[in-house]
Amino acid sequence: MLYPLTKRRSEGAIPIAANYRLVDAVVSNCINSNINKIYALTQFNSTSLNSHLSQAYSRIGIGKEGLVEVIAAYQSPENDSWFQGAADAVRRCLWVMEEYPVSEFLILPGHHLYKMDYQKIIEAHRNSKADITIAAFGALRDQDPGFGFLKVNSENQVVEFRLKSESKPINFVSVQAFIFDGYWEDMRSIEAFYQANMESTKKSNIGFNFFDRESPIYTFPRCLPSTLITDAKITDSVIGGGCILNRCKVKGTVLGLRTKIRDGAVIEDSVIMGSDVYQMDIQNGVDRKGIDIPIGIGEDTQIRKAIVDKNARIGKNVLIINKDNVQEGNNEANGFIISGGIVVLLRNAVIPNGSIV
Amino acid sequence: MLYPLTKRRSEGAIPIAANYRLVDAVVSNCINSNINKIYALTQFNSTSLNSHLSQAYSRIGIGKEGLVEVIAAYQSPENDSWFQGAADAVRRCLWVMEEYPVSEFLILPGHHLYKMDYQKIIEAHRNSKADITIAAFGALRDQDPGFGFLKVNSENQVVEFRLKSESKPINFVSVQAFIFDGYWEDMRSIEAFYQANMESTKKSNIGFNFFDRESPIYTFPRCLPSTLITDAKITDSVIGGGCILNRCKVKGTVLGLRTKIRDGAVIEDSVIMGSDVYQMDIQNGVDRKGIDIPIGIGEDTQIRKAIVDKNARIGKNVLIINKDNVQEGNNEANGFIISGGIVVLLRNAVIPNGSIV
Amino acid sequence: MLYPLTKRRSEGAIPIAANYRLVDAVVSNCINSNINKIYALTQFNSTSLNSHLSQAYSRIGIGKEGLVEVIAAYQSPENDSWFQGAADAVRRCLWVMEEYPVSEFLILPGHHLYKMDYQKIIEAHRNSKADITIAAFGALRDQDPGFGFLKVNSENQVVEFRLKSESKPINFVSVQAFIFDGYWEDMRSIEAFYQANMESTKKSNIGFNFFDRESPIYTFPRCLPSTLITDAKITDSVIGGGCILNRCKVKGTVLGLRTKIRDGAVIEDSVIMGSDVYQMDIQNGVDRKGIDIPIGIGEDTQIRKAIVDKNARIGKNVLIINKDNVQEGNNEANGFIISGGIVVLLRNAVIPNGSIV
Amino acid sequence: MLYPLTKRRSEGAIPIAANYRLVDAVVSNCINSNINKIYALTQFNSTSLNSHLSQAYSRIGIGKEGLVEVIAAYQSPENDSWFQGAADAVRRCLWVMEEYPVSEFLILPGHHLYKMDYQKIIEAHRNSKADITIAAFGALRDQDPGFGFLKVNSENQVVEFRLKSESKPINFVSVQAFIFDGYWEDMRSIEAFYQANMESTKKSNIGFNFFDRESPIYTFPRCLPSTLITDAKITDSVIGGGCILNRCKVKGTVLGLRTKIRDGAVIEDSVIMGSDVYQMDIQNGVDRKGIDIPIGIGEDTQIRKAIVDKNARIGKNVLIINKDNVQEGNNEANGFIISGGIVVLLRNAVIPNGSIV
Repeated sequence: MLYPLTKRRSEGAIPIAANYRLVDAVVSNCINSNINKIYALTQFNSTSLNSHLSQAYSRIGIGKEGLVEVIAAYQSPENDSWFQGAADAVRRCLWVMEEYPVSEFLILPGHHLYKMDYQKIIEAHRNSKADITIAAFGALRDQDPGFGFLKVNSENQVVEFRLKSESKPINFVSVQAFIFDGYWEDMRSIEAFYQANMESTKKSNIGFNFFDRESPIYTFPRCLPSTLITDAKITDSVIGGGCILNRCKVKGTVLGLRTKIRDGAVIEDSVIMGSDVYQMDIQNGVDRKGIDIPIGIGEDTQIRKAIVDKNARIGKNVLIINKDNVQEGNNEANGFIISGGIVVLLRNAVIPNGSIV
Repeated sequence: MLYPLTKRRSEGAIPIAANYRLVDAVVSNCINSNINKIYALTQFNSTSLNSHLSQAYSRIGIGKEGLVEVIAAYQSPENDSWFQGAADAVRRCLWVMEEYPVSEFLILPGHHLYKMDYQKIIEAHRNSKADITIAAFGALRDQDPGFGFLKVNSENQVVEFRLKSESKPINFVSVQAFIFDGYWEDMRSIEAFYQANMESTKKSNIGFNFFDRESPIYTFPRCLPSTLITDAKITDSVIGGGCILNRCKVKGTVLGLRTKIRDGAVIEDSVIMGSDVYQMDIQNGVDRKGIDIPIGIGEDTQIRKAIVDKNARIGKNVLIINKDNVQEGNNEANGFIISGGIVVLLRNAVIPNGSIV
Repeated sequence: MLYPLTKRRSEGAIPIAANYRLVDAVVSNCINSNINKIYALTQFNSTSLNSHLSQAYSRIGIGKEGLVEVIAAYQSPENDSWFQGAADAVRRCLWVMEEYPVSEFLILPGHHLYKMDYQKIIEAHRNSKADITIAAFGALRDQDPGFGFLKVNSENQVVEFRLKSESKPINFVSVQAFIFDGYWEDMRSIEAFYQANMESTKKSNIGFNFFDRESPIYTFPRCLPSTLITDAKITDSVIGGGCILNRCKVKGTVLGLRTKIRDGAVIEDSVIMGSDVYQMDIQNGVDRKGIDIPIGIGEDTQIRKAIVDKNARIGKNVLIINKDNVQEGNNEANGFIISGGIVVLLRNAVIPNGSIV
Repeated sequence: MLYPLTKRRSEGAIPIAANYRLVDAVVSNCINSNINKIYALTQFNSTSLNSHLSQAYSRIGIGKEGLVEVIAAYQSPENDSWFQGAADAVRRCLWVMEEYPVSEFLILPGHHLYKMDYQKIIEAHRNSKADITIAAFGALRDQDPGFGFLKVNSENQVVEFRLKSESKPINFVSVQAFIFDGYWEDMRSIEAFYQANMESTKKSNIGFNFFDRESPIYTFPRCLPSTLITDAKITDSVIGGGCILNRCKVKGTVLGLRTKIRDGAVIEDSVIMGSDVYQMDIQNGVDRKGIDIPIGIGEDTQIRKAIVDKNARIGKNVLIINKDNVQEGNNEANGFIISGGIVVLLRNAVIPNGSIV
């Protein structure tokens, strides 16, 4: 569960590695694998995901069809309910493919971070003549990753499927496993999401290479100002477009779009998502909403091991260091929760001057 | 109710006047009134409407924001239900405007056909300082149009609102009426929809001028082939892009995109919606789906006062003339219903050779 | 020479078959052959061609690169002259490919009408290991098409190249011929251009199929109104988007975008290019430019075997029938020339009421 | 003269302030002033400028017309010469406006950096009823800026125009001056260009605010990776998208798109334009072109007061410090020139390890 990052958006729309949204990874995999017809089935808090996909990818393509078409959950005369899970969503949307003579589908979750050339799994699928081919993660062969096990025979045929303690033998259909062994992160927790961001700050960039010219990661293209830095010491960090950094120290941190850091701030081991806009409406120290703490990170504030969602307003002399070393805690009323020891500030959170978390 | 045209699509996505979708009228009014931020709230059978809006209008605009942003109904932690009507939809989507300092909204239904310069109603609203201004149709001052009455005083203030037999006095808020007197069609029935199409075939084009350079109607721009005509007598009709007309007679009819009419066919007073694709898959007289009647209108077939939805396959020597003069009837199993004396063929309907309706 | 159609535009920008421009054929061949990086080198009257290519094709593609990039002739410190022909243009633009590791190029003229899967010539080229492969038209094996001969040996190696009476043996490089045998029209004369248009009006559409779903012809996508027809007898003709046809007869004719034909007009065996806009500025019978003949074809006018360029204003009771059967003639002052017996009305020509050509 | 920055591109296409091209300033002024039809007349080294304008701005706009249409110099039957200067270019392109009923034009150079609401000069022009209104720079009232003087009377009517030593009285037409007093930089020299870049690195950002939400600067929107920083001390600098900074010091510097700085490098008071691509082709230390120095800035290299054009390859232990304090010098053979004491490295320059400039 990625709550509270999913309070207003679905998982795929969560910003990651500063410039991207989570869903960009799988869409870019498709583009780089020459797959040019994608349907995105959405339902939960889908507004920002729909908007991102539609803005980023519907402009692409010749003639009528964009690269990605969003199919939001909808009511119909035959079915008044929401999609009842991923399988039901796929089933209820099969009609959109009526006019296409397609017989093979890739079904991909939108919140995993990995690079895969899907042509390879397609080729393996065709060669095996299986009914279904499932990509399985080989690296964890003997650990329980928390999302199910495939038991395969020597020819990688799946003979048993185990989810939690329940085990299902495979009958009726032939199921093949496609063993994948690269970097792969399932964003099933705040901690996993935090780790994936930390991975992006590493020099070696081994986990997931955003700079690969051959298989680039696409996203909504923006024309943001260049990042302006007054006086900063920056180590092992990534910085998104349009930031404004005054006198500050930044270490092991992801700074998202339009992040503003004021004099004396120190940020370590954190994910700052930045802001949707540059604030223009401050008069006499108070903005249009009557708030006297501006968007961004205030003077002399220190942040360590935190995730700061978009548009947060963090005052001066604030300490966000999880000083009591809480592992799990919910303090939404004051703008944050703690999950796995990581402090997560909510979208639009307001943290008064001098606060200590 | 526009069923069965709404069987797979919402009202706004119904094709009208050959090249357009119903929703294009209200979006074009916005564009021509210099309103450049539109949210389209959708829920019922929304797939094709979302797709149309996203393809046609999300490419427009500078920077992040497209002209039209679709907000499909979605589940959220706070609210697991569908939109409970239009007012609820608006209420639940107010949060998307959080970051915009807007204080005035236009709320527009997506299935009305009319031209209005919205700047005029905005100006009237500002001048009257009313809380709410409602556009009211003056031309029907004494008839019951079936969708409610406003009772106004001499200054056009609304003093009473009547819906069906129920009457509500207006308290607490000041409501102003903006009297509109041009062409206006509410697509509340198959008959109204049929009439609006018939209007588009008239030479004078008084009702709704699609050829007006100053206030054009926008839609998804296409690159269809030019219409190819072998031998046709055409009167009082409009013809969309990419049609193929063999030897035929067409009178008082709307021919939608990619309509195919074969030798000897006669079409009168009808709305033919055309086809989504050119059929390429016919081998030995049978297509990929095993159907031996191709998309389009067959040899020597006659159609009168009918609406033929997309991709219908009408065989040879068919008569669609409502020969028994039925007013209302449902024969979906055979591909049609009759509403207000108008025969409506369903999307993908197959009408065998020699059928008589 | 396609003058006067090239008076204000280059050959590739000439409208053809109503909805298209000549250059769309070769660009569409590229798209349909999965070639996605095209440079269009332009120089002569290039404004409308550049604009067409940039509007129609630069929107396509992911990331930085559009499908088609226009390289207009330019001055540089090293070279102050215009491109000295096609070969020089290619030579002077080689630098743009510096950053691409490409070693094979297709060089394609922009004014030929044909369908070819370029992957086939690429494959043949690779197989033969020739330095250069040239597509040659096999169908005219023994006629002089007016643009040069290749003499090939039994393995299709070119051993001699003959242009007009001059003959060049091939030395130093190995040149292979790729024999092409489909429909192919080089727009080297008004007559060839006229023939290509006539071809597009034929039912069988054998010459060049615009309706082929597998290899469609792309162009700038437009949202024009549906064509409105009051009372027309139309045979063997193609009709572009947004025409307005009153009571008229049209036979063997191409009617371009927004063509307006008034009551009593008869058009035969002609190419009408239509208009760039709908005229809105007529007051008291005179428009903004002081001209009292509106754009389009006037009442009771007859046109036979003519090409009418864009925005022409043809009055009432005009006869454009080449009554004296002139083969060649230049009457630009009066708005037309005659070439190969075909009357060509210039762009923006004004033909007074009652004129006889 | 901005040579050698203009060796392969025209002035408007020169990168500035990391993410932008010079021409973006004037186009953004137009957009922010609600001017939505721009013709860009280009001729000299126009390829990259045409490409930038076409990619960045032709996608914007409804229907046929993009925001910016490029008119490259072209040959025509009437005129075989290049544009003979700016006035001739305007004169020869007037025909493109034939169909628009416009009577007022703004003529704007594409290489000036300033913000102006053009509606104000339009309003002043209309109020004064002058034939021509010229924007004049008030701040330099008594200095010679090197590009001409206007002498105005008390009502700001221009009574004399002085260019260099030549003076022209104004007759026949009424000319009005519009006095402009904000930040304004004419890129008439390497030094002016350098100063404009330095201005963009200042915290106060007074000269030209790139972060202004109300009047943003547009450019080609990109989806570059976030900048990755291993260990950097950065002061008074701006950083474009997709840079990779290892252990380094950066002071008073503009780092353009995809700049790569290696361990130990020190950059001061410089403009680094970055790179068009990420280099992927290095094998055994040598790239596809056989060059053994990769794109970017090498280990332990120091750069001070230099402009480094795109794709330069600067080796290890290089000193670019203008050690002999040369004011003007041309050493193109070795990849640089010196202008006004500023070292300018050419596009694609290769500077061997250990070089001292």
